[in-house]
Amino acid sequence: MNPTPRDLPCDLLISADLILTQDEERRVLENATVAVRGGQIAALGPKDSFADLQTAERLDLGRALLMPGLINAHTHVPMTFFRGLADDLPLEEWLKGYIFPREQGLTAEITELGALLACAEMTRFGCTAFADMYLFEDSVAAAVDRAGLRALLGEAVFAFPTPASASFAAVCDKVREQAIRFKNHSRLRVAVMPHTVYTTTREILRASADLAAELDLPLHIHLAETAYEVESCVREKGLRPLAYCRELGLLGPSTTLAHCVMLNEDELDELEVSRAKVAHNPKSNMKLASGVAPVPAMLRRGILPGLGTDGAASNNSLNLFAEMSACALLHKVFAADPTVCTAKDVLDMATIGSAAALSWPELGRLVPGGPADMIALDLKSPNLQPLFNPASQVVYATCGQEVCFSMVEGRILYQDGAYLALDHEEVLREADKLFAWARKKL
Amino acid sequence: MNPTPRDLPCDLLISADLILTQDEERRVLENATVAVRGGQIAALGPKDSFADLQTAERLDLGRALLMPGLINAHTHVPMTFFRGLADDLPLEEWLKGYIFPREQGLTAEITELGALLACAEMTRFGCTAFADMYLFEDSVAAAVDRAGLRALLGEAVFAFPTPASASFAAVCDKVREQAIRFKNHSRLRVAVMPHTVYTTTREILRASADLAAELDLPLHIHLAETAYEVESCVREKGLRPLAYCRELGLLGPSTTLAHCVMLNEDELDELEVSRAKVAHNPKSNMKLASGVAPVPAMLRRGILPGLGTDGAASNNSLNLFAEMSACALLHKVFAADPTVCTAKDVLDMATIGSAAALSWPELGRLVPGGPADMIALDLKSPNLQPLFNPASQVVYATCGQEVCFSMVEGRILYQDGAYLALDHEEVLREADKLFAWARKKL
Repeated sequence: MNPTPRDLPCDLLISADLILTQDEERRVLENATVAVRGGQIAALGPKDSFADLQTAERLDLGRALLMPGLINAHTHVPMTFFRGLADDLPLEEWLKGYIFPREQGLTAEITELGALLACAEMTRFGCTAFADMYLFEDSVAAAVDRAGLRALLGEAVFAFPTPASASFAAVCDKVREQAIRFKNHSRLRVAVMPHTVYTTTREILRASADLAAELDLPLHIHLAETAYEVESCVREKGLRPLAYCRELGLLGPSTTLAHCVMLNEDELDELEVSRAKVAHNPKSNMKLASGVAPVPAMLRRGILPGLGTDGAASNNSLNLFAEMSACALLHKVFAADPTVCTAKDVLDMATIGSAAALSWPELGRLVPGGPADMIALDLKSPNLQPLFNPASQVVYATCGQEVCFSMVEGRILYQDGAYLALDHEEVLREADKLFAWARKKL
Repeated sequence: MNPTPRDLPCDLLISADLILTQDEERRVLENATVAVRGGQIAALGPKDSFADLQTAERLDLGRALLMPGLINAHTHVPMTFFRGLADDLPLEEWLKGYIFPREQGLTAEITELGALLACAEMTRFGCTAFADMYLFEDSVAAAVDRAGLRALLGEAVFAFPTPASASFAAVCDKVREQAIRFKNHSRLRVAVMPHTVYTTTREILRASADLAAELDLPLHIHLAETAYEVESCVREKGLRPLAYCRELGLLGPSTTLAHCVMLNEDELDELEVSRAKVAHNPKSNMKLASGVAPVPAMLRRGILPGLGTDGAASNNSLNLFAEMSACALLHKVFAADPTVCTAKDVLDMATIGSAAALSWPELGRLVPGGPADMIALDLKSPNLQPLFNPASQVVYATCGQEVCFSMVEGRILYQDGAYLALDHEEVLREADKLFAWARKKL
């Protein structure tokens, strides 16, 4: 039951000219208020109906659009320190010549600084939750906790040793320990994240699925990103990547497949049946020239992908507003049909779809009883006027820095230029040391 | 001759951690200074070399990237008032159901307000010059003048009456009058702008070319934007659009062709020989699902297109940073080759290429003796660190609102949140009336 505003116990009343709820009916409320209490939304409705409430603190954002925080369904946050290190190169040359050699020198400290910089960027650009796959994920957890964001965290599983873990067994120990440690953490969750079908083995993938089932954790894997991946999987394993994963027990409702560029019609049918989730990363797929994921075909089947930025090394930003725009535009031109991938579809992807991809379905909408994760856009920005259709404005016209307010679990993280959880200037000073590290191997 | 800084008469010295010059060698200077005098760049070089200069006013932008203002090679600025009016529709339905009916009710006042809002947006997003084709272009001129920007302005030529002009003869009179009035205006120039091959006649196109030649004005036309345009041109005129324009005398070095989506290899050869310029509008072409212009093939031939946003009704912004990113990413995925359309190529397009498309080749670079049109990006923004390659950062990582400084002809138009030429709050108040006008016909 939604309590009447008059009786409402709450910590903060936030009002705005417009509230885009992303609720079941996709309601957009004018001159409306959200009541926040204990990290949750206690109620929301017309501003007038909260007028008599005496006790609560009030924040009126005025000419602003309040909406759910965006959710990044697939990223590698510490890779901010490789942003723009090398671009416009063939994938192999980029990975082997630039990224992999540096990752060999990775430390927990560097990882944490990269993640902190990413958290500042995500906070600034209206992302409130994300799924992260990388190394030294404990360091990422420390950064996310300090920044006040939410994340689903997964230590990447490889068939070979990494600077963070000597073996698959070591990764499993880490995941078990994290699963216990974060069991009651309201903002951090853990997943099992095997890297790809080509950087793991049959045994490791099967054991990863078993571990996820045993600990009741989501599973997240890169899948069908490139033609090369599909060809080599068929050649070496006799199956396409999706079938190979199914055979090894990886497909299910709490599995998220990142990329899915190369899925054919039969595989889309299978995806639908499995209820596995998709994390679509259009900008990374475009920049690396991997291809175009069949998103309109997914939407026709009722599969709503989540939206991800991938790492800053291949994007080169963690800006989900830019990602939404690229997503809609790419699929329209590729399908030669301006009616596919509408603003509504894409906004749903970056909120509700991404929440599902994090196995955290309460996120991505503003509803009574749900988490108080929200952002506001400054509608006085000249590019956001006039406003006919809020979803269209958010997807097509917003660049991301119009975000003037960001809240996670009822805590304000950013407001009008000020970072309230992180000290961004300090992060930048610390990160300057780290950049010297990334630069010196150039 | 570049005077030595010590002897330099100048109004203002602007320093920044990095200056991206876009000069012949594409030099990037660290800890550098630009000396501005009388609307021009008097000198630029290492900050130290200007240390002894006593008289000038100094502005140190610190951790910022100073670069040439971006140039929008093709737009319709008053259309800001149709931003997001209708999206995700087939082109015909969008034009005939939404845009055309409203354009019938257009007035000079509405046009000026739409243009003012656009000027605020362009100033905020680092655009300092643009080519505009629309109706009531005198009203656009008034807005641009008030905003302090540069523009090449062209009243759109149609075969039918418009709310602004009863006939082609009336448009010609207007262009003649403007050409005289703006002859000595340093920031406003005039062009002849027939709309398309399908909204004009053979006679009107020929007369447009004659008028441009007589008055020594550039000519600007939409060309080969859609398959429909090409097919109807072949069917009705027996020629593809490019050949039809050549036959009527429209092709030459001071002609700019907007879109060029449908040019084939033979036409690219012809384009190269003609030395006509191209205005590429990737986001509009994607959103309307028009197709993908053969930009990598142009670049291979040494044809550097300019970059445009088209109108805000089909983009839905006038943000050239978003346009640069979309341009690079689109061509990589479409060519299945990450090495095409590099950051350097795309940055050249939005500066030097667009300057050529405006027939204003002095623009788009920071060189001694050139116009003092420049912008700065705040490098403290978390998405702009670390910085390995300035061109990559500008094209792939920047969202546009990192612009913290904008100058045209030596006059500061925007600095750290303040609009110094336009009163943006007042523009927004005035524009609110106009939005009611656009909204009431919904």
